[in-house]
Amino acid sequence: MAGSSSDRLTESLKPFFFPRRIAVVGASREKGSIGARVLDCLRSGGFSGSIIPVNPHADVIDGLPAVPSLLAIPNPIDLAVIAVPAHLALSVIDKCAARLVPAVIMIAAGFAETGERGAGIEQELRTKIQQHGLRLIGPNCFGVMNLDPTIRLNATYTPVLPPFGPVSIASDSGGIGATVIMAAQRLNIGISTYVSLGNHVDVTVNDLLEYWEQDVTTQVILLYLETIPDPRRFRQLAERIGRRKPIIALKAGRTTAGQSAAGSHTAALATNDWAVDALFSQCGVIRVSTLEEWLALAMAFSNHRRPAGRRVGILTNSGGAGVLCADSCEKEGLVVPLLPPSVSATLASFLSPLAAPNNPVDVIGLATEEQHAAATETLLGSDALDALIILYLSINVADNDQAAAGIIRGIRAARLAGSRKPVYLCWMAESDRDRHFTVDGEVIPTYHAPDIPALVIRRLLSYEAWREQSVEDVRLPPARELPQLDVSQAKAVCAKALAERGPGWLTTEEVQALLGTVSVPLLGRLTTDPDEAVQAAETIGYPVAVKLASRHILHKTELGTVCLNLTDGQVVREAFHTIKDRLAQAGKLDLMDGVLVQPMVSGGMEMLVGATRDSHFGPLIAVGLGGIHVELLGDVRFGLAPLTNHDVSRMIRNLNGYPLLTGYRGRPAMDVGGLEDVLIRMSYLVEAIPDISQLDLNPIIVLPDSQGCKVVDARVLVQAPFEH
Amino acid sequence: MAGSSSDRLTESLKPFFFPRRIAVVGASREKGSIGARVLDCLRSGGFSGSIIPVNPHADVIDGLPAVPSLLAIPNPIDLAVIAVPAHLALSVIDKCAARLVPAVIMIAAGFAETGERGAGIEQELRTKIQQHGLRLIGPNCFGVMNLDPTIRLNATYTPVLPPFGPVSIASDSGGIGATVIMAAQRLNIGISTYVSLGNHVDVTVNDLLEYWEQDVTTQVILLYLETIPDPRRFRQLAERIGRRKPIIALKAGRTTAGQSAAGSHTAALATNDWAVDALFSQCGVIRVSTLEEWLALAMAFSNHRRPAGRRVGILTNSGGAGVLCADSCEKEGLVVPLLPPSVSATLASFLSPLAAPNNPVDVIGLATEEQHAAATETLLGSDALDALIILYLSINVADNDQAAAGIIRGIRAARLAGSRKPVYLCWMAESDRDRHFTVDGEVIPTYHAPDIPALVIRRLLSYEAWREQSVEDVRLPPARELPQLDVSQAKAVCAKALAERGPGWLTTEEVQALLGTVSVPLLGRLTTDPDEAVQAAETIGYPVAVKLASRHILHKTELGTVCLNLTDGQVVREAFHTIKDRLAQAGKLDLMDGVLVQPMVSGGMEMLVGATRDSHFGPLIAVGLGGIHVELLGDVRFGLAPLTNHDVSRMIRNLNGYPLLTGYRGRPAMDVGGLEDVLIRMSYLVEAIPDISQLDLNPIIVLPDSQGCKVVDARVLVQAPFEH
Repeated sequence: MAGSSSDRLTESLKPFFFPRRIAVVGASREKGSIGARVLDCLRSGGFSGSIIPVNPHADVIDGLPAVPSLLAIPNPIDLAVIAVPAHLALSVIDKCAARLVPAVIMIAAGFAETGERGAGIEQELRTKIQQHGLRLIGPNCFGVMNLDPTIRLNATYTPVLPPFGPVSIASDSGGIGATVIMAAQRLNIGISTYVSLGNHVDVTVNDLLEYWEQDVTTQVILLYLETIPDPRRFRQLAERIGRRKPIIALKAGRTTAGQSAAGSHTAALATNDWAVDALFSQCGVIRVSTLEEWLALAMAFSNHRRPAGRRVGILTNSGGAGVLCADSCEKEGLVVPLLPPSVSATLASFLSPLAAPNNPVDVIGLATEEQHAAATETLLGSDALDALIILYLSINVADNDQAAAGIIRGIRAARLAGSRKPVYLCWMAESDRDRHFTVDGEVIPTYHAPDIPALVIRRLLSYEAWREQSVEDVRLPPARELPQLDVSQAKAVCAKALAERGPGWLTTEEVQALLGTVSVPLLGRLTTDPDEAVQAAETIGYPVAVKLASRHILHKTELGTVCLNLTDGQVVREAFHTIKDRLAQAGKLDLMDGVLVQPMVSGGMEMLVGATRDSHFGPLIAVGLGGIHVELLGDVRFGLAPLTNHDVSRMIRNLNGYPLLTGYRGRPAMDVGGLEDVLIRMSYLVEAIPDISQLDLNPIIVLPDSQGCKVVDARVLVQAPFEH
Repeated sequence: MAGSSSDRLTESLKPFFFPRRIAVVGASREKGSIGARVLDCLRSGGFSGSIIPVNPHADVIDGLPAVPSLLAIPNPIDLAVIAVPAHLALSVIDKCAARLVPAVIMIAAGFAETGERGAGIEQELRTKIQQHGLRLIGPNCFGVMNLDPTIRLNATYTPVLPPFGPVSIASDSGGIGATVIMAAQRLNIGISTYVSLGNHVDVTVNDLLEYWEQDVTTQVILLYLETIPDPRRFRQLAERIGRRKPIIALKAGRTTAGQSAAGSHTAALATNDWAVDALFSQCGVIRVSTLEEWLALAMAFSNHRRPAGRRVGILTNSGGAGVLCADSCEKEGLVVPLLPPSVSATLASFLSPLAAPNNPVDVIGLATEEQHAAATETLLGSDALDALIILYLSINVADNDQAAAGIIRGIRAARLAGSRKPVYLCWMAESDRDRHFTVDGEVIPTYHAPDIPALVIRRLLSYEAWREQSVEDVRLPPARELPQLDVSQAKAVCAKALAERGPGWLTTEEVQALLGTVSVPLLGRLTTDPDEAVQAAETIGYPVAVKLASRHILHKTELGTVCLNLTDGQVVREAFHTIKDRLAQAGKLDLMDGVLVQPMVSGGMEMLVGATRDSHFGPLIAVGLGGIHVELLGDVRFGLAPLTNHDVSRMIRNLNGYPLLTGYRGRPAMDVGGLEDVLIRMSYLVEAIPDISQLDLNPIIVLPDSQGCKVVDARVLVQAPFEH
């Protein structure tokens, strides 16, 4: 899996996490300054190596002997933390290079995030880093932590240290990263390493993914991202690493991308955020949209126990909390099954007569420690359940200790008896919210709202389902497996159009030629006079459709230039004239390329297939229900090229309207395989030809059984890539 | 508004909230017992009246002289709190009656919630209450609070008292109610009164709504409901009271109603929870689905300042938090506008050069108190914004005090300068989460997650939009305004069918008769032989559709018994025979009533209108996009009968597909007024005729302009009401 270049990369990042000697440049005696805070955090965190403050104006800082410059340090330095202002930072980099410091954390702000001048300094920094071959995290960042007990590195400026554990974090925002670190302490989430990426001039999230792949303590990866550098590399890495170490991403910055001037369906729908969604679902990244969900999943994935199925037991001391939790289970697609009579009987034998020994099991507010313990053990022991949610609602703070003790005893007893079922706790105790539950080393995921455990279980199940897809089965069908696909000829069509007319829409003739090369032909014959149209209709066979062919006019139906179900030569001739007249009336006669004479297609399902090109993410392929519904109801799914067999399958099956393709209410099943083939071919086409800026097959009719698809209308926009 | 019966009701509930003398029956010396806890809470809460413990086994309890029985108390008692077990409760009620106690809170559990035996006791209790004419809250409840400083009544068993303020709470669950009370203390939500409804044998949520309407301290109403007793009264009260005092409801118990055996579209979609949604949106109740949202809105609505529009300013000390907040604003349909250059310039004049004086405004992590204050004041002073969200993310706990002081100073200065804009605070300070912000008496709504303020603002704006609908404008069009509506004749059709055949589907003939009486006729002529069919077709004019008429067969298209676009007598005749043959092949010839010959309808929009009858909520009317999309895409909206003009307008306009009715992309606008008229007529019909158990107009074609609607297929199920 990881080649030697990956090993080299990992090796280059080690000094950030396992340094023996750290220089703090800009260490200061001024309380509250970043330099003073960093030094304080490094020391109070219990760093196991040595710390050398660098400050030209002090001999001793906070009891440590200081040096005036990096150059004055005699021994090798593994890591420099730079807390000086931006305008001084560049010269420090030179000194790092002179002292052969392999790794630098640059906390200083004042770079590209502040405007043009800062961007200039950042570019100089980038150049220097590359020249000197050293690695840099930041600038404009919050630092790095490694909570491994052998090193205890806190090179940040928050003194809060969460417990050591399986979660590693990378954050584009220092503030969000710091908040998570502090929340992790409160919520008992074990952290391995933490990196604030800042402006990621050198080290990016992709580098960290490769590092964490090798790092044995990292088992769960948390990302807060505002941008995704090199999405292709990210996709490759995330797909590989995520199968062993779940990646949970909070991607912020969902902006409304401006609609393409040409008003393509695909472009309008495909904002940047759709591309992010497509990317994440293609490589199994678990996307969350709130901090709360992010932390909730971090907690759940940190525990190695996973639900084997959707059957959830609910144990509560309040009927209301049980109902809210059951509601959330149903909403998340989980099942709250009836308990087997024997289990209910067991529960009834030790619970109060006022209790409800069903599912949810309500032990009632005044349950004893013994009852909490026995109920927990009983439910964890039942084969009828895949997971247990325990809700505890505190009416009187004095009751909390015995309830907590009972729950812990119950879990312990069940584990000793061999139960492997996961437990999710909802501890609704107002004055006692930060209680932690650890049972013989197992950290029990603990929440405070009754709707969170169900959400968490659903996400765990989805992740396991994704993971269970056999890796071998995911593939890009090689071009040789796709018969009749001639990309070189397709390239020629686009190049010729670009050379002749510059950027713009292809003519109907060119579209037919282009799609013909990949064997997804646009239906019908282009004709330019009434006689030719009639002749085409006779050849095709009645009934036919006659439509305006124009690369400039988008909404042909609205203009009344689409005539359907024409049954003889006379009406075809009339249709030709009607279309011409309508165009003349609209003053657009010069935009007419001719008319397209097509056989009528019936009995199929009208769909849309499109492709657009995101300047950052590359080609994005869309599939959706066709016609006017696509825009209005938004039933469209996206995938980034190159599409794999799994991607196309998932895109189509995730459509709300998918049942319409599978033999819905007596209709025939449609050729889903044929549609998948079209998507794969379009992916190849736009991958191979960067000149294609936008492509719409709309509608494309998916026919029943294995009759394939018919493209009824299509548009292609070509543009040299740099003009996009 | 409130008549004298309302005054009497309010008077009858006063002893629960303003008692002068309380007897605690079952007051106990046993620590941890409910009786002991209630007594303790009453005393520690600082109740201003007198408390008389009732216990046959003690002379003094907790320092208070006790009496052996209610009968031994010489003076009048305003309120009895009963904390004895269920089997003793009934005799205590008799004693209450003997002593003329007007109000009883029965905390004891062991009634209907525990099964059949308990239900029996509960019935006896109900009977006794009615006989004696006293008012009762409970049983199986958590008690009552009134935090008015003149009374300070805590007749519950949690000692936690939140601050006094504008929110009153009713809860079907004692546990959820107690949690909210405790959370209110933590979150600084001011509470007026609190009632745990328990099994609501006597006092219901509706009674409390009437009480709170009159209660001057109650300004915001919070409901946790598992059932809604008397939904019609609730609707009437909530609509009236909610306009002055927002009602925020957490309705739990969303169950999947079993599908109607007959498999009607409407019935399958119209689970009980759809009825709740319909009810709440019809009477302006703000529905939430989580405790977190419930509390967040309680906080926001407690502050009388409301955003005047959608333009939000974001002030943050962390770029990441600002991005997350801006994302949530966009998601909630709010606007984060560019700041006017003068405002940005003002901000830049006092913020760090590293800060971002745009919107979001990032003051950066190390901002001073002065900078926090000035930025807050500047943004609150800008006319370009309707509301301000301030996000503070703590990197070091030592910084929190000055940030908080700065924010408070800024708000104060802005208020003094006349700013009326609301402020929502997101205080992301891990070790300092429970800080409260009160500025000269104004409680600032304070949250901890960056996505909550936007959600809150959206809900506030929706509420104001609902409230601004003029009350006068909401009306049930009286029957005389609906021409050609003959309910008595419609009744006769149903009664005759029921009398002749018992419960079941109406025949096509009966459906035509029934719908004819309300002037929403089912299109076409019913015929029973081929000649008659041809004759009907000639009369109607070609092309026609010929369809199986059978009250027993649902899916006519799937059976191949719908023939469209028939253009002459010969094909009509053939169609008749085909339909008959298909039925014969399927062995269902005896189920054929004949065939319906209809004109072909084109150019309209296929919709569905339906009605079903919920045993609790009554008739529920549905409208949606027609055809197969209704079930698959779920684009249906519901309303409870009787539908007002506002209801039908909202139901139709809330459809995702609504733009298809309004002249979408060059299509003609459809007759929405005609569709509204159909909904009103169906509402009248099912209201007037309880025998109609289910009704589907599917499809109904809405025609362009003011051409009305055409019912193309319809089914009606009749059933005597008690059989439903």
